[in-house]
Amino acid sequence: MKKNLPLWGAGVFAGALLAVPAEAAVSSEAAYVFNSFSFLVCGALVMFMAAGFAMLESGLVRARNTAAICLKNIALYSIAGLMFYLIGYDLMYTGVDGGLIGSLELLYNPSGLELALINAGDKGQEAALAALMKAETGYSSMSDWFFQMVFVATAASIVSGALAERIKVWPFLVFVVVLTGVIYPVIGAWTWGSGWLAEMGFSDFAGSTIVHSTGGWAALTGALILGARKGKYGPDGRINPLPGANIPLATLGTFVLWLGWFGFNGGSQLALGSALDAAAMSIVFVNTNLAAAAGVVAAMALTQILYKKIDLTLTLNGAIGGLVAITAGPDLQNHLMAVIVGGIGGVLVVFAVPLLDKLRIDDVVGAISAHLVAGIWGTLAVGIFGSGDFAVQLIGVVAVGAFVTVVSAVVWFAIRAVMGLRIDEEGERLGLDQVELGIEAYAEFGKGSQSIA
Amino acid sequence: MKKNLPLWGAGVFAGALLAVPAEAAVSSEAAYVFNSFSFLVCGALVMFMAAGFAMLESGLVRARNTAAICLKNIALYSIAGLMFYLIGYDLMYTGVDGGLIGSLELLYNPSGLELALINAGDKGQEAALAALMKAETGYSSMSDWFFQMVFVATAASIVSGALAERIKVWPFLVFVVVLTGVIYPVIGAWTWGSGWLAEMGFSDFAGSTIVHSTGGWAALTGALILGARKGKYGPDGRINPLPGANIPLATLGTFVLWLGWFGFNGGSQLALGSALDAAAMSIVFVNTNLAAAAGVVAAMALTQILYKKIDLTLTLNGAIGGLVAITAGPDLQNHLMAVIVGGIGGVLVVFAVPLLDKLRIDDVVGAISAHLVAGIWGTLAVGIFGSGDFAVQLIGVVAVGAFVTVVSAVVWFAIRAVMGLRIDEEGERLGLDQVELGIEAYAEFGKGSQSIA
Amino acid sequence: MKKNLPLWGAGVFAGALLAVPAEAAVSSEAAYVFNSFSFLVCGALVMFMAAGFAMLESGLVRARNTAAICLKNIALYSIAGLMFYLIGYDLMYTGVDGGLIGSLELLYNPSGLELALINAGDKGQEAALAALMKAETGYSSMSDWFFQMVFVATAASIVSGALAERIKVWPFLVFVVVLTGVIYPVIGAWTWGSGWLAEMGFSDFAGSTIVHSTGGWAALTGALILGARKGKYGPDGRINPLPGANIPLATLGTFVLWLGWFGFNGGSQLALGSALDAAAMSIVFVNTNLAAAAGVVAAMALTQILYKKIDLTLTLNGAIGGLVAITAGPDLQNHLMAVIVGGIGGVLVVFAVPLLDKLRIDDVVGAISAHLVAGIWGTLAVGIFGSGDFAVQLIGVVAVGAFVTVVSAVVWFAIRAVMGLRIDEEGERLGLDQVELGIEAYAEFGKGSQSIA
Repeated sequence: MKKNLPLWGAGVFAGALLAVPAEAAVSSEAAYVFNSFSFLVCGALVMFMAAGFAMLESGLVRARNTAAICLKNIALYSIAGLMFYLIGYDLMYTGVDGGLIGSLELLYNPSGLELALINAGDKGQEAALAALMKAETGYSSMSDWFFQMVFVATAASIVSGALAERIKVWPFLVFVVVLTGVIYPVIGAWTWGSGWLAEMGFSDFAGSTIVHSTGGWAALTGALILGARKGKYGPDGRINPLPGANIPLATLGTFVLWLGWFGFNGGSQLALGSALDAAAMSIVFVNTNLAAAAGVVAAMALTQILYKKIDLTLTLNGAIGGLVAITAGPDLQNHLMAVIVGGIGGVLVVFAVPLLDKLRIDDVVGAISAHLVAGIWGTLAVGIFGSGDFAVQLIGVVAVGAFVTVVSAVVWFAIRAVMGLRIDEEGERLGLDQVELGIEAYAEFGKGSQSIA
Repeated sequence: MKKNLPLWGAGVFAGALLAVPAEAAVSSEAAYVFNSFSFLVCGALVMFMAAGFAMLESGLVRARNTAAICLKNIALYSIAGLMFYLIGYDLMYTGVDGGLIGSLELLYNPSGLELALINAGDKGQEAALAALMKAETGYSSMSDWFFQMVFVATAASIVSGALAERIKVWPFLVFVVVLTGVIYPVIGAWTWGSGWLAEMGFSDFAGSTIVHSTGGWAALTGALILGARKGKYGPDGRINPLPGANIPLATLGTFVLWLGWFGFNGGSQLALGSALDAAAMSIVFVNTNLAAAAGVVAAMALTQILYKKIDLTLTLNGAIGGLVAITAGPDLQNHLMAVIVGGIGGVLVVFAVPLLDKLRIDDVVGAISAHLVAGIWGTLAVGIFGSGDFAVQLIGVVAVGAFVTVVSAVVWFAIRAVMGLRIDEEGERLGLDQVELGIEAYAEFGKGSQSIA
Repeated sequence: MKKNLPLWGAGVFAGALLAVPAEAAVSSEAAYVFNSFSFLVCGALVMFMAAGFAMLESGLVRARNTAAICLKNIALYSIAGLMFYLIGYDLMYTGVDGGLIGSLELLYNPSGLELALINAGDKGQEAALAALMKAETGYSSMSDWFFQMVFVATAASIVSGALAERIKVWPFLVFVVVLTGVIYPVIGAWTWGSGWLAEMGFSDFAGSTIVHSTGGWAALTGALILGARKGKYGPDGRINPLPGANIPLATLGTFVLWLGWFGFNGGSQLALGSALDAAAMSIVFVNTNLAAAAGVVAAMALTQILYKKIDLTLTLNGAIGGLVAITAGPDLQNHLMAVIVGGIGGVLVVFAVPLLDKLRIDDVVGAISAHLVAGIWGTLAVGIFGSGDFAVQLIGVVAVGAFVTVVSAVVWFAIRAVMGLRIDEEGERLGLDQVELGIEAYAEFGKGSQSIA
């Protein structure tokens, strides 16, 4: 049982089930190819979001912590893929059946029927194909695995941004192991894996809660336990901006995330093997784009009004807020709704960022605002504009928040006790790059006063 | 009536029309999926061109104006998408019928037949699918909308590059609203929307004139009205180079544009539902690549000869010139023609950039040379190497130039009268980033004499 | 005869050959579309690797040589495409037939049957399509050409990185002409073109040897003939690091390469027209990702152990080493094998980089370690974990090494004799950007002591 069936049921693989004339319909083998290729192409786009996060975060940290954030980002993507292979996928998708977790089997591999087809000689292929067509879900097992895998890394990317500039590399990566191997798969099991939340009717098309809020709660918990960067908050309530070192890279990162999000939301249609699926996926692409655009325009206009100047960083986060907000329900059939949902996502980010600062919760790149706050909004919006039940949506938001917060806190405290979490003061002053990696991100660019502060 | 029908007619959706044996041909539903998926994948590539323009322009402006150009680029892409949803698509494609503009209906939404299919229960799907297959154009309505939408932003990106470093953010964005909501859709209506130019036989496969020259004319008009940057042109006829701050970003931007152009030109085959379309699209990909490569090599060799050194910026613009030149006719069946068309595109850029400087038309990134000059060449080249009629091609070039120039001028003057266009001298000296956004793009990188000049 | 037939035979285009019921199977025309579109999409991803190399190399050279490396990268990609069109493709694929080289015909163009279909009027299309379906290989000729073309540039990119910071632009580009027009196509003829190595049973799925080692051997030969950068190796055996100027760009480049590698390996299934192909391609995607991830984690852990700090540059190269290693056999059916192959690839890079330095072979970006060493490992691994014969794999490795080394050496010496290879000492001190291009890559970023050294 995969992600799609309990949540959007009817529309999926409809092509194969329809009794239209054979010469007009998509054949079952062609549907299998369409579905699999859609997973691969959309999955590759989502994979590229790892680069987007790396660039966004590289641009928004100070120069002295840039190499460390680069390392964390490529490492977390790698760990996420290995952990999902080792344990995550089965924990999330195999035999959850209304419960809390799936199987504890290790090392996911291709389905036997597929290997039989691939290994069949010329003579055996016909029978092997027939068996595959009859028994399988309509797509290649590893194309689905690939698509699900790339989502795991996104949750971890959110954490790296929020906790940048002070968390040590290895403790962060140990947290990533647990987040991607256990925490995210358990949340996934409850929902896309057909667990208890799915049975209640919780609806989260591509993961406003399941991916983005999960990462956001883990980041929030970490930010509270880790504390703020030195110098971020003055003793008199003063908030120091500590501006990022490379704004065009942050802009590039945002564009890459936007591009990847077409795969993120579009691929979550989970099928392309029928006209219905193609039409539905197209609607998803359009809503994704409109919501992001609305987030940008809303954040621009609002910061102009509030601060008399457009705030570029908040505008970039407005795009992300719009994207996160639409992620729970990008299948809205009236596109104006997507504009509204995304625009509100952008507005929420503009208010959430200073609010967190007022609470002295130090989120370096605004990830908690863009992913958690907009993620909650998007999930609830499915209960307002979409087909979801508001109460069930709220239960899902709260349940995920409670579980991720509690388990994350336990893990953060355990790591802190065993190996420490935070770079020491001298290290923070010098920067993680020098202390942890022994490298400079920009070895030749003269440093202004900022980096000596 | 969509873009393809009047201009390339016969080849499109041939798969569905052919009377080949059912078991050999592409079924009508599979063609629908192929066509729609091609729009989505190619459209995503074109969307990424917005990032390419952002990086190209970020790399070629001075550090003090970098954040502003980042903001302008993400804002213009957002506005283009919203305006095309609000009014542009219908104005361009609905009911033009040989005339000047389409419908003034607002807020484009999915076709009723598609929504009927998506919303049909298990029982009704067969009938809904049959109705869709019978009545529709062979692709999902929103996949087409998505593909057309991403083209709009390209036209606006051209303007942002040319007018960088001196135009204020909000007046620029107001112009973008008009350009993407009215000017571009009207040009589109005349041509791809089956308006009067299409009826004359004007041929512009993917938009050398319709997209690139439209943006180029708007940029040229703006550059004339706005005037040059302070210090660009000395009183003694001296031309100061004002070099860009980040050459690798400019290079990255060019590569991203090149990648996106496969979607731009390839997707403009407008169909993938038959062997004919797949073969034709492949030819388009190859010609696109060869033309860009020829533009690079031509610009490299020519600048070496002219200046005794390769000029990297002109070489990057040579790639773009080659791409723009082939855009009007990338379906050339002898690939050598594509090499020639693209190579001449690169050569034209190398001559046009200093010529504009001699005329004291200040185009910060060379956009007018690469998009307008090469765009005119590419459009006329269809009348020489391709299937177009040279006289008609010329009429199209002139008509588009006249309309865009006049309307743009009116809009530029109106904006100037109401809110001003240009940053004041002190602001230009300090940079748009500080004055308009209150941010530094590279907060920690020591500044050389250039930025204080 | 194309790349796939001798090497992986049976699995390819199986969809078209199967005698399953027509309404279940993929039709031959749909298979043609799938196969062609897969080539185009995967080829576009591989094309983007040129940007990945450009960014990786831009980030790892010093500021004063950055514009030159940008120029070299866009130029080599352009030249590769033109040379493969001019002569390379036919030399590699047409009529090799167990021999050493293919045809010397010039200027590859679309197949006549495809042009007949495209040019047929409405009446002739049915017959033209039937002829194409009967006679052709199941994909569009130019989609295959496009996919093969993008591989050529990769081999050249490897050379540019290794020889950066001291080779002059034009001599380098002359070498690229020979490498992409002759050396690579000959290696390709021996193997994917059905030459003598293919007949022996040499197996290299996507080019660990054919692409990556070919580039690596050419780079190694060049590095030996060119000598090390001034100041890299002290007289007392001291090795000076000469750190790169822009680490986030190097990280971005690595991510882009990783993304492109899905096309590189996945597209090398060479077909998507059946469930078998879709399942096989999915396995390739997953193995590619796991091997890269294992390379990252292995390099991280090993550098932490060896140097007490994670080395970010080696970690990035660990990703590439893992990717190169899996490239010869990404079709492994037990994914754990891919983790092992990739992890060893990462380990080898960590040991090879200091070893080359000990031998005073100056490879600026680690390309020889990541592409040649890991490429040899990956090719031999097919004889251990995969379906290859170890002795034959070894013969292939040695034969390719011998040929590329000898021919490259002749070409390098000839270029040196005619036009010189290396920038003079003063030019090396000032940087290639200033001397060869007359430009600064980062005109405004104050320079630290590094760049004056």
